[in-house]
Amino acid sequence: MRIKEVKGGVCAPEGFKAGGIHCGIRKNKAKKDLALIVSEVRAAAAGVYTTNLVKGAPVVVTKNNIADGYAQAIICNSGNANTCNSDGMEIAEKMCSLVKGVAGISEKDVIVASTGVIGQKLDVTPIEEGMTELYNSLGDNSDSAAEAIMTTDTVKKSVAVEFRLGLKMCRIGAIAKGVGMVCPNMATNLIFITTDVAISPEMLQLALSEDVKTSFNMVSVDGDQSTNDTCCILANGLAENDLIDDKSSDFKTFCKALNYVTVKLSRMIAKDGEGATKLIECRVVGADKKNTAKVVARTVIKSSLVKAAMFGADANWGRVLCAIGYAGVNVDVNAIDVTFSSKKGDLPVCKGGYGIDFSEEKAKEILSEDEVIIDINLNSGSYKATAWGCDLTYDYVKINGDYRT
Amino acid sequence: MRIKEVKGGVCAPEGFKAGGIHCGIRKNKAKKDLALIVSEVRAAAAGVYTTNLVKGAPVVVTKNNIADGYAQAIICNSGNANTCNSDGMEIAEKMCSLVKGVAGISEKDVIVASTGVIGQKLDVTPIEEGMTELYNSLGDNSDSAAEAIMTTDTVKKSVAVEFRLGLKMCRIGAIAKGVGMVCPNMATNLIFITTDVAISPEMLQLALSEDVKTSFNMVSVDGDQSTNDTCCILANGLAENDLIDDKSSDFKTFCKALNYVTVKLSRMIAKDGEGATKLIECRVVGADKKNTAKVVARTVIKSSLVKAAMFGADANWGRVLCAIGYAGVNVDVNAIDVTFSSKKGDLPVCKGGYGIDFSEEKAKEILSEDEVIIDINLNSGSYKATAWGCDLTYDYVKINGDYRT
Repeated sequence: MRIKEVKGGVCAPEGFKAGGIHCGIRKNKAKKDLALIVSEVRAAAAGVYTTNLVKGAPVVVTKNNIADGYAQAIICNSGNANTCNSDGMEIAEKMCSLVKGVAGISEKDVIVASTGVIGQKLDVTPIEEGMTELYNSLGDNSDSAAEAIMTTDTVKKSVAVEFRLGLKMCRIGAIAKGVGMVCPNMATNLIFITTDVAISPEMLQLALSEDVKTSFNMVSVDGDQSTNDTCCILANGLAENDLIDDKSSDFKTFCKALNYVTVKLSRMIAKDGEGATKLIECRVVGADKKNTAKVVARTVIKSSLVKAAMFGADANWGRVLCAIGYAGVNVDVNAIDVTFSSKKGDLPVCKGGYGIDFSEEKAKEILSEDEVIIDINLNSGSYKATAWGCDLTYDYVKINGDYRT
Repeated sequence: MRIKEVKGGVCAPEGFKAGGIHCGIRKNKAKKDLALIVSEVRAAAAGVYTTNLVKGAPVVVTKNNIADGYAQAIICNSGNANTCNSDGMEIAEKMCSLVKGVAGISEKDVIVASTGVIGQKLDVTPIEEGMTELYNSLGDNSDSAAEAIMTTDTVKKSVAVEFRLGLKMCRIGAIAKGVGMVCPNMATNLIFITTDVAISPEMLQLALSEDVKTSFNMVSVDGDQSTNDTCCILANGLAENDLIDDKSSDFKTFCKALNYVTVKLSRMIAKDGEGATKLIECRVVGADKKNTAKVVARTVIKSSLVKAAMFGADANWGRVLCAIGYAGVNVDVNAIDVTFSSKKGDLPVCKGGYGIDFSEEKAKEILSEDEVIIDINLNSGSYKATAWGCDLTYDYVKINGDYRT
């Protein structure tokens, strides 16, 4: 199959419009803070959410609204997470009603999300007053929506692809916000995906639930799991492919295209992590079990000491071994090989659990790139996994240590 | 019972001598790098060690040597962890033999420890050449030993107490090194405890194993678990108390005195964490189970976002709630109360899972102290736990991101 990147973000698939405005939740008028994505027709819908016990009210409302497998619009504000507020549910439901008011879509077909500081009441007035402008902004404006959901993200995150199912050209588009905060607050991922593929809600949920295991669930910036993480997908069927309602070859093709989009976004989110100067990809191979590979990859990516070493372009492989050792999975320490690499080349640093001689100069050159790979071979089986993270920098501390203002 | 702090560190108990020298493992001649502690007589011995699968060779040798329940000396170098080296075991055993050579103690009665960079061979020559000087340095020199085991510690860590068992005055002394690195490397705790109490090896091991659950195992600086963590205790019996060989009231008294020492050291280690500007104590009460209390306390202390907020003296209680929510234990979010406090007063910030109004000015004043307490009441039972950590600062990144030199 051929997957081709195209422009348009969430508006690339047939029948989707998007828009974003500044409505006034944020004080900075130059920064958009409210986004809307609408499908021409009701769409199959699926979602995955934070497993944090402390959940934002919008997460609860969205789960309820797409429980029947369908939705037609997504509304999202930045600047306030609407979490840990006694009136949170009321406000989140009100946001859905406001979409109904302007778009004539049932409030039960609206996905709602919020991101920003938690524990401060979200005043719905600016949203209410901005709804007409927001609705009028709808068009081929994926970038406006992508901008409106950003918090401390430094770049907009958007991907779209096209691929064939039978004779039909299909598309998947997506926008995301990565780790950041407004006032400042916790790392929060929001990912909204659109597609014109015809697929049943059940298969859509299955595709998404499986997908995140190798994409968004393999990303760590600081190991703090948000209260508002939400990844939703709308599939409106306008590509007119044969409906996917079982594990057909079309389903597999769809899953591959979806994974292309989500892995690309995962890398973008990691690379734009708070304060990050570089993307770190950890690829584990040779594991005895799938779980071993995943846990090792994630543990290495999350290690503060590995992250700080990467910031300093320091080939301190002992910290990688140390992290593998405390990952809590069974590995044979004396079988582990570690190699650092980047565009500048490969550098084996550890063989069979012991250090090997290497050029510190070469190491510095390789690790100074803005995308660095840590390859780990556990030499104990055939399972593998990849995780993405970033370095730990002064700016991470600055962003997260500064007083909420 | 009355526990009184006394001077003398590991030399406070009867029959222990200590010393420390610069032998040349480190380039900086002003920094001691080799320590020795010796008991006049063979002592009951117990230890707890890192659970990292990647273990320093000295950890393996020490475990073997005290498997019979007895030891008489402790040798420890800083500057190199002797870990992930193909000749590690040989070198660690050689260090024990060197003690035998100067002190006439069986090499099987020597506890050996190393701390510093991992994956670089430890040249035993400077140790060998320094042994006579080291042996001659033995005396009432606990501080010299404490200094010799320091890596990036900024203060020596030493505590000693006296207390009565029956009519006999007994003592416990200890030195520790906290989180730091040499070149730089991973957070490593080494703790050496001496006592003149007469106690069987079995009861000594029981006391220590129970003790660390509420002391050293409740400390986190960066969540990276070392390959060389070692906490050992020698009990030489010279206080001539009635031998403790069961769970008598004397045993309980001994455990209380031990816990006084270890909690005090835990706080010192946390406060002197790499780059730290303040000690953070997280006290959890009202938990449904002991494990819930422990996991919540440790998760909050480990959160990068909580740590960064504390650095900024930012009363961002949402991050505390967020960390509780992803701790992986069952809590009722809507029952949680959170209060920040320090010498400057108390500040309730969250009640029943929702934010409450507070003075940001007062918050800043309280959180700007060098010892800050986060009190969490889960309001779901009667179990409690306390954990210690520190803030996340620019200096943590600096210390750990700088190139190994």
